Amino acid sequence: MSAIKVIEREVLKEKPQGPMGFGQLFTDYMFTMDYKEGKGWHHALIKPYQNIEISPAAQVLHYGQAVFEGMKAYRQGDDIILFRPEENFKRMNLSNARLNIPEVDVAFLLDALQQLVRLEQDWIPAGQGESLYIRPFVIATEPYLGVHAATEYQFMIILSPVGAYYGDDQLMATRIYVEDEYVRAVRGGVGFAKVAGNYAASLAAQTRASELGYHQVLWLDGVEQRYIEEVGSMNIFFVMDGKVVTPELNGSILPGITRKSILQLAAYLGYEVEERRIAIEEVMNAESVSEIFGTGTAAVISPVGSIRYQDREVVINNGATGPVTQHLYDEYTAIQEGRKADPFNWCLKINKR
Amino acid sequence: MSAIKVIEREVLKEKPQGPMGFGQLFTDYMFTMDYKEGKGWHHALIKPYQNIEISPAAQVLHYGQAVFEGMKAYRQGDDIILFRPEENFKRMNLSNARLNIPEVDVAFLLDALQQLVRLEQDWIPAGQGESLYIRPFVIATEPYLGVHAATEYQFMIILSPVGAYYGDDQLMATRIYVEDEYVRAVRGGVGFAKVAGNYAASLAAQTRASELGYHQVLWLDGVEQRYIEEVGSMNIFFVMDGKVVTPELNGSILPGITRKSILQLAAYLGYEVEERRIAIEEVMNAESVSEIFGTGTAAVISPVGSIRYQDREVVINNGATGPVTQHLYDEYTAIQEGRKADPFNWCLKINKR
Ligand SMILES: Cc1ncc(COP(=O)(O)O)c(C=O)c1O
Ligand SMILES: Cc1ncc(COP(=O)(O)O)c(C=O)c1O
Repeated sequence: MSAIKVIEREVLKEKPQGPMGFGQLFTDYMFTMDYKEGKGWHHALIKPYQNIEISPAAQVLHYGQAVFEGMKAYRQGDDIILFRPEENFKRMNLSNARLNIPEVDVAFLLDALQQLVRLEQDWIPAGQGESLYIRPFVIATEPYLGVHAATEYQFMIILSPVGAYYGDDQLMATRIYVEDEYVRAVRGGVGFAKVAGNYAASLAAQTRASELGYHQVLWLDGVEQRYIEEVGSMNIFFVMDGKVVTPELNGSILPGITRKSILQLAAYLGYEVEERRIAIEEVMNAESVSEIFGTGTAAVISPVGSIRYQDREVVINNGATGPVTQHLYDEYTAIQEGRKADPFNWCLKINKR
Repeated sequence: MSAIKVIEREVLKEKPQGPMGFGQLFTDYMFTMDYKEGKGWHHALIKPYQNIEISPAAQVLHYGQAVFEGMKAYRQGDDIILFRPEENFKRMNLSNARLNIPEVDVAFLLDALQQLVRLEQDWIPAGQGESLYIRPFVIATEPYLGVHAATEYQFMIILSPVGAYYGDDQLMATRIYVEDEYVRAVRGGVGFAKVAGNYAASLAAQTRASELGYHQVLWLDGVEQRYIEEVGSMNIFFVMDGKVVTPELNGSILPGITRKSILQLAAYLGYEVEERRIAIEEVMNAESVSEIFGTGTAAVISPVGSIRYQDREVVINNGATGPVTQHLYDEYTAIQEGRKADPFNWCLKINKR
């Protein structure tokens, strides 16, 4: 693909002062690129952040043919880094394949993203727990009501400066509700892919859990409704007999990049790590579960203070953040925020030019 | 809600001459209505069919919070009718409830739809098997990347004149492929609702079946991958020992309006009807399956000529349309197209004014 055309805006927006929340505020520019069958991806463009115009018959609006990614750019002193961006574009291609969306060019997008973030570098906040959230996504734009893989798509990247996910109290322990009626995903379905429909399908359970006073839903597998999958939009980890344990990838769990990174980091820090099937009874009965935490790009690491399944609630580590969770959180965010060296080469430094 | 404002267009489009296909051609006008938390549904409008403008952060593009419906208007001599439109708006509210989308007002929408179709009556084709396809849908428009039930929505109705689904050969017997790897839906999920994400998730299986030379995918249940659910975007019926049998609604099958109507019609015509669980082996082994057909608004009734499961293919009724299928098809379309009286009050006559 040829070079990326840039359309400049005349007036820049005010940068936020004070709390930024998550995903409500967008920067000055966006990246867009189109796909048409026979022509491939083309017309790569950086342009002022603006509404898009689509046909009311666009497939995405009817059949949910859409995938997305989420990653972050951090300030590290004078530097700017992207955290494992290649992993996200590769995962997008997994999602694309599952929904019959054409592959994107990872190397090209890595360049495009760097160009966009370079242009928007003043939008990356510098506070603790703050970052620039990056949302690449693809939507099917072909105006046709037949159920089929679309022949036209739009790829976009939008950027949103974000604060710490749970506000000031970054390591607030959350209460989670084990969902035993609604199902998020099943093997043979789309649970392993970051596809739009998974999230709409999760709202009812999340709403019920919130009404009952819980922060997040813990999902069980769709076949037996017995094995632990993930929690809200995070993967889940247990500290059991000193080991760091997480459900194995099984086709219905999203392969989180934070999950993968935490497994690597924990092993590096000397913990024994394990990926395996974990039944809910094991967690509800075991004296041996000393800590639970969720992992995801948005919240990074989020300790779980209690877990409710049917009519029982188990408090974990007295409802406080445990030592292993704290240790992993400190080491992980130190790498992301540049306070410690990055032995894994996770941080991609952007040339600020 | 107050009266519907109408914005007229200056130049009308050319009506199609010749084959219309399905869902590619749209009429002159569309209906739209907005929702905002605290304000409810408002701003009902009939306006020229046109592109819509939405934020790139609109929830529908990321999280698939979208539902739709599909129904038809027919010409009956000089009259125009809508086929069971109330059923569709009621089902939309079931889908809405599952995705935490606010309820729509069925009575108001029935009025709005009649007003729209009255205005567009010249678009309703008169040929055999032809009709005006009606697509109501709701999308979440709130520009916010937090995963939550949106606070802003748009409801729309667009119209598309359509020919017979399989072209001239309306009762062409189809070849179906029993999918034993991909799963469409599971109990506790969203299979019973007409939500966008279900269709994107079905594309991979449909594509594979097409590549193998089959017309449609037959879906098995998500838990045991053994019980028959539906086929493509249709419900499925079997003629077994003279009885008309279809899978019972179980939370993962879409409750088709054609399904419901055919059950009623078959009983009225003197067939014994049955809704129950049907295992795939039963169909693959039974001498007693004399006919199979699919039902849905788009294709109406679609005979199945052969069914392939794993490495076996069974030909049904020598690959031809069977007598029960033909009988139901003739009687059903006669009611829709006004060639016979409508004992069930399914046809809602529109005042042409
Ligand atoms: C369903 C789901 N599970 C887990 C995760 C965590 O993935 P990652 O660590 O790549 O952000 C996410 C996304 O962030 C998700 O949406
Ligand atoms: C998945 C699915 N099953 C069955 C049907 C048949 O439903 P109806 O008869 O209401 O058109 C449809 C839609 O048309 C569908 O999308």
